[in-house]
Amino acid sequence: MGKIRLIVLDVLKPHTPSLIDLSSALSDIEGIEGVDSTVTEIDKSVETVKITLVGEDIDYEKIKGVIEKMAGSIHSVDKVSAGSILVKEASTPQDR
Amino acid sequence: MGKIRLIVLDVLKPHTPSLIDLSSALSDIEGIEGVDSTVTEIDKSVETVKITLVGEDIDYEKIKGVIEKMAGSIHSVDKVSAGSILVKEASTPQDR
Amino acid sequence: MGKIRLIVLDVLKPHTPSLIDLSSALSDIEGIEGVDSTVTEIDKSVETVKITLVGEDIDYEKIKGVIEKMAGSIHSVDKVSAGSILVKEASTPQDR
Amino acid sequence: MGKIRLIVLDVLKPHTPSLIDLSSALSDIEGIEGVDSTVTEIDKSVETVKITLVGEDIDYEKIKGVIEKMAGSIHSVDKVSAGSILVKEASTPQDR
Amino acid sequence: MGKIRLIVLDVLKPHTPSLIDLSSALSDIEGIEGVDSTVTEIDKSVETVKITLVGEDIDYEKIKGVIEKMAGSIHSVDKVSAGSILVKEASTPQDR
Amino acid sequence: MGKIRLIVLDVLKPHTPSLIDLSSALSDIEGIEGVDSTVTEIDKSVETVKITLVGEDIDYEKIKGVIEKMAGSIHSVDKVSAGSILVKEASTPQDR
Amino acid sequence: MGKIRLIVLDVLKPHTPSLIDLSSALSDIEGIEGVDSTVTEIDKSVETVKITLVGEDIDYEKIKGVIEKMAGSIHSVDKVSAGSILVKEASTPQDR
Repeated sequence: MGKIRLIVLDVLKPHTPSLIDLSSALSDIEGIEGVDSTVTEIDKSVETVKITLVGEDIDYEKIKGVIEKMAGSIHSVDKVSAGSILVKEASTPQDR
Repeated sequence: MGKIRLIVLDVLKPHTPSLIDLSSALSDIEGIEGVDSTVTEIDKSVETVKITLVGEDIDYEKIKGVIEKMAGSIHSVDKVSAGSILVKEASTPQDR
Repeated sequence: MGKIRLIVLDVLKPHTPSLIDLSSALSDIEGIEGVDSTVTEIDKSVETVKITLVGEDIDYEKIKGVIEKMAGSIHSVDKVSAGSILVKEASTPQDR
Repeated sequence: MGKIRLIVLDVLKPHTPSLIDLSSALSDIEGIEGVDSTVTEIDKSVETVKITLVGEDIDYEKIKGVIEKMAGSIHSVDKVSAGSILVKEASTPQDR
Repeated sequence: MGKIRLIVLDVLKPHTPSLIDLSSALSDIEGIEGVDSTVTEIDKSVETVKITLVGEDIDYEKIKGVIEKMAGSIHSVDKVSAGSILVKEASTPQDR
Repeated sequence: MGKIRLIVLDVLKPHTPSLIDLSSALSDIEGIEGVDSTVTEIDKSVETVKITLVGEDIDYEKIKGVIEKMAGSIHSVDKVSAGSILVKEASTPQDR
Repeated sequence: MGKIRLIVLDVLKPHTPSLIDLSSALSDIEGIEGVDSTVTEIDKSVETVKITLVGEDIDYEKIKGVIEKMAGSIHSVDKVSAGSILVKEASTPQDR
């Protein structure tokens, strides 16, 4: 099967463990080169985070495992890039 | 005939098989170098996905075969690029 | 006469032949290096397509011939670039 | 006198001669390297075209001569760049 | 654990010590290569500052220590990037 | 004193002498490398022009002299860049 | 202490001395490589100017001294960048 190069996740997590610890743990998974975690909403006890993961060969089950072990849950997978090159979404009039 | 270099598809699919499995399978097709799959709408049982495929020589029928085998259906072909170079759409006042 | 390097066309076409076949045929014309075809509107029986053609020496009559042979019609020529270099439209306050 | 490197013109022209013929003729003028002609408005018998001309040493009178010989008229000169380098308009709060 | 490469903080601080002194002190922390401090709101006695820290291996506790020693408090951690490369947040339709 | 590298002027001028002649004359001043003149408003007898001048060592008084000799007047100096490098205005939340 | 690489100031100044003289004087300060001065508001007797200063090692007190000697006053320090590299503010959903 073709390798996964990029995944964007919408994740709900408690404030503890911190975003820093979660990002660090995710970047440590085999096949991951880097992680961007951006907070999109903060509530009293939880925060919604958009997580962009980039790598040469990303294993979704391992990512899910780490997020759940750290008390988070994946709401949705919003973007996936696969193949020998990292393709960007082409802009179309349907986006505008 | 001139070779197809890029196709953008609007696809409706059930939540299973996952976007990750669909993207991986598409990127494995001969002539495809990479795939970006971006979710544009999520409903209870289905999701709408904008799929950008890039390659040296893309065979639309093979792509359609993989998407349908994985329970998806192509709503529309929104963009096609063909030729010896990958041409970008020029911006015009008609877009604005 | 100076050579034509880029043309943007507004084309109306039936759903068959497909956008993929039309793009491939256009990219095969002598003097064309690549083609981007972007769907701007879809109706029951026809679609409106913005076609950007790039090449070293584009012959408009050949393009028109291919489009009409494939049951399409050119509504308007929206942009033309000619000369020894490919000039981009300069932005002015009149555009804004 | 300093050499003219870029001119943007607002031109009114009949549909015939075509935009392709006008652009080709303009790009053929001595001192012109390339021309972008972008249609900004189409009426029944005339079209308004924004023409961007780039070159090492542009002679406005020759451009005007070609446009008028091809039945067009220059409404306004909207931008001029002159000198040994091609300067871009700097963005200021007054534009916003 | 994976190394932290970038952190964005939302910080509330009194006007003294100055933003210049705070930025300089933060950039002096081991593992930090540079700091951007941008004022987002100014009140009579306090200012809200968005602080972007970039480095090879950022220690959040040291940053927090310096900010608090200089009378500031961290309201929220808005973005974290971790791993062997500095990943940028991918744009998705959910942002728009 | 530090050398002036870029000036943006808001200039009011009659239609004659032309924008082409004014731009050419300005680009001919010692210390000027290039000039962009962009029309922001046209009235019956006058036009408002935003002029961006770039050079290694710009003398404002010479520019003012040329503009006034060609019947124009400087309304305001909207931007100045000085020093050994050409610095761009940094974006801040106050601009937005 | 970490070196200051960029400062953005909001400055109120009388029309005389001119923006050109102020920019030139600021760019002449030791440790400054370049200055962009952009007018954001003009009143009858004063103008508000956004000043971006870039350098290897900027001394705020010297800048303040020059601005005040030239009859200006600093309203606010809107951005500061410090460290061994010039960090750009990361974009976050909180900006939008």
